[in-house]
Amino acid sequence: MKVYNFSAGPAMLPEEVMLRAQKEFCDYDGSDCGIMELSHRGSQFSKVIETAEENVRELMNVSNDYSVCFIQGGASMQFCMIPMNLLPAGGVADYADTGTWSAKAIKEAKRFGQVNIVGSSKESNYDRIPVIRHWKPTPDAAYLHITSNNTVAGTQYHAFPPVPESVPLIADMSSDFMSRVVNVDDFGLIYGGAQKNLGPSGVALVIIRNDLTTRIPDSIPTMLRYDTYVNNGSMFNTPPTFAVYMLKLVTDWLKEKGGLQVIEEINDAKSDALYNLLNTSDFYRSPVDPGSRSRMNVVFRLPSEELEAKFVKDAAANGMIGLKGHRSVGGIRASIYNAMPLAGVEQLIDFMINFEKKNG
Amino acid sequence: MKVYNFSAGPAMLPEEVMLRAQKEFCDYDGSDCGIMELSHRGSQFSKVIETAEENVRELMNVSNDYSVCFIQGGASMQFCMIPMNLLPAGGVADYADTGTWSAKAIKEAKRFGQVNIVGSSKESNYDRIPVIRHWKPTPDAAYLHITSNNTVAGTQYHAFPPVPESVPLIADMSSDFMSRVVNVDDFGLIYGGAQKNLGPSGVALVIIRNDLTTRIPDSIPTMLRYDTYVNNGSMFNTPPTFAVYMLKLVTDWLKEKGGLQVIEEINDAKSDALYNLLNTSDFYRSPVDPGSRSRMNVVFRLPSEELEAKFVKDAAANGMIGLKGHRSVGGIRASIYNAMPLAGVEQLIDFMINFEKKNG
Repeated sequence: MKVYNFSAGPAMLPEEVMLRAQKEFCDYDGSDCGIMELSHRGSQFSKVIETAEENVRELMNVSNDYSVCFIQGGASMQFCMIPMNLLPAGGVADYADTGTWSAKAIKEAKRFGQVNIVGSSKESNYDRIPVIRHWKPTPDAAYLHITSNNTVAGTQYHAFPPVPESVPLIADMSSDFMSRVVNVDDFGLIYGGAQKNLGPSGVALVIIRNDLTTRIPDSIPTMLRYDTYVNNGSMFNTPPTFAVYMLKLVTDWLKEKGGLQVIEEINDAKSDALYNLLNTSDFYRSPVDPGSRSRMNVVFRLPSEELEAKFVKDAAANGMIGLKGHRSVGGIRASIYNAMPLAGVEQLIDFMINFEKKNG
Repeated sequence: MKVYNFSAGPAMLPEEVMLRAQKEFCDYDGSDCGIMELSHRGSQFSKVIETAEENVRELMNVSNDYSVCFIQGGASMQFCMIPMNLLPAGGVADYADTGTWSAKAIKEAKRFGQVNIVGSSKESNYDRIPVIRHWKPTPDAAYLHITSNNTVAGTQYHAFPPVPESVPLIADMSSDFMSRVVNVDDFGLIYGGAQKNLGPSGVALVIIRNDLTTRIPDSIPTMLRYDTYVNNGSMFNTPPTFAVYMLKLVTDWLKEKGGLQVIEEINDAKSDALYNLLNTSDFYRSPVDPGSRSRMNVVFRLPSEELEAKFVKDAAANGMIGLKGHRSVGGIRASIYNAMPLAGVEQLIDFMINFEKKNG
């Protein structure tokens, strides 16, 4: 049975990518060695990491004012690297609070300086992105940090907050990186773990405006400094070579699909289909404010927790796995990242209609 | 042509491991998903990381006084995590200086406190492990740090320095982890990047005595604290799942081979064969003091740099790659980690004998 994996991440990767990686797993480019067995300083891997960077630059239209870095530790490591590098002593960092992941980022920033919460949707259980025009930004903030998509709550920014030129906008895009067109020039730093849209876990993609790497305090350790990655092409030490290779294959695939505008249209079609069903159903219900609904993680509720448990179980028996909502909120969550084909969403919708008929 | 890869790392992995990972790359355990596509919280990956830990404990006879952690960032990240966690303000850390990698560890430690170099072989170009009985340790050092094997210089500790009970011995075993029997109880912390003996790059194995995780300053960020990994089974955030899976397969393989005593005998046979040739040759020459020679990285010189370049080129044409010495020292380096079969070393020796006949 063909299985569709709706996990929030690590998540399914494009089938073509997985098959290609499997085919050349033990013999990369005629070397009789796997890419993971080859030196990171050798010609084969150098070409892989350079192409990965070129792909990112091309797909996201990244100018030479920015560096593209591959860093270990996931988005969670960025939660501390950002304030260590960019929040000077006595400075204030602005954070928007949109749930679990922003809370973790805020916790780490507080170790290094003052944090101002510009806006929060905590009072409504993070069911929306807090209305940006009501935010209270710090005029001379070191930066403004947002979480562009929230996997637990199922919310997503559909417009980004305006910032003064002196305030870099920083976005954790872990769960919607390269799922849509964004204007990189609007940001000072964009980061995200690869394991939703870009590849396996074990590498974070960081796009940073070069001027931000010139004011890093000398006291910050080598491996936690952005300039270490910028100045050494992410090769100060051995990078996670296989994860970077997978990211290269995934971005090759994105280019072949036609780039981010095409993938955004597909992602819109996939999420529209699901939200249309939720909007017209008396059985399924979205807990998320219509203006903030995520196109990556579609969360919904059924009339009872018993029915939700049955839904998850029956779906798995029908080849649709990973649909259980985050343990902190319950319910159902369908994560439909770039690699989830429309056919997978259609199969889920058919299943949902049938499930309602039988149990509604 | 069968290729033998003598790279210093990332290095060759056992053929059986590579073939098994390839076979189940797209369909792990009947899931129709690759292990890298599955949630790290799911039953399949949970079993993988638990087995990886059990394998490490069994192979190295790790008692319950220690925790086994999987951490991103390689050994280089440990260079800063160790002093951040274990060097208190005003304390002194002892370091032995045996070349490139200890120098990098020392550089990071100096950011956090006073460093005392207990011994160094810098004056003789790091051609040996400095004689331990001449070391000048700090009586109340926070810890004593050594690099058990030095990939650049081709040196290795064949006995470890004694320490008072109050001083934890810390070893960077990146390039000889699980290549021989060591008594874990002699150490406070052992760490190493996986990409030589244990798996692909992207994960470091850290074995830490539990009492050392109780005195970490509150100010250290979550992702840089050992207790975060100890208290969450290395799953505070998404671990590098595929790298951990590969480490699990490699440690399965080590167990099947018979464990570390058996692998140590094989490694001794491999390195003995090469050193015997160097000892009896007028053409090849080891620059390393006989008592400090590495059983993992056998470095040697030829009569001229021209001959060394020809050696590397001819060897590659005969299916033996990665033999060029580190760029900082030149010469030849044959890295013969656990996964290098005796047959690979025998083929290299045959080639060396023929090369000498033709060019000597």
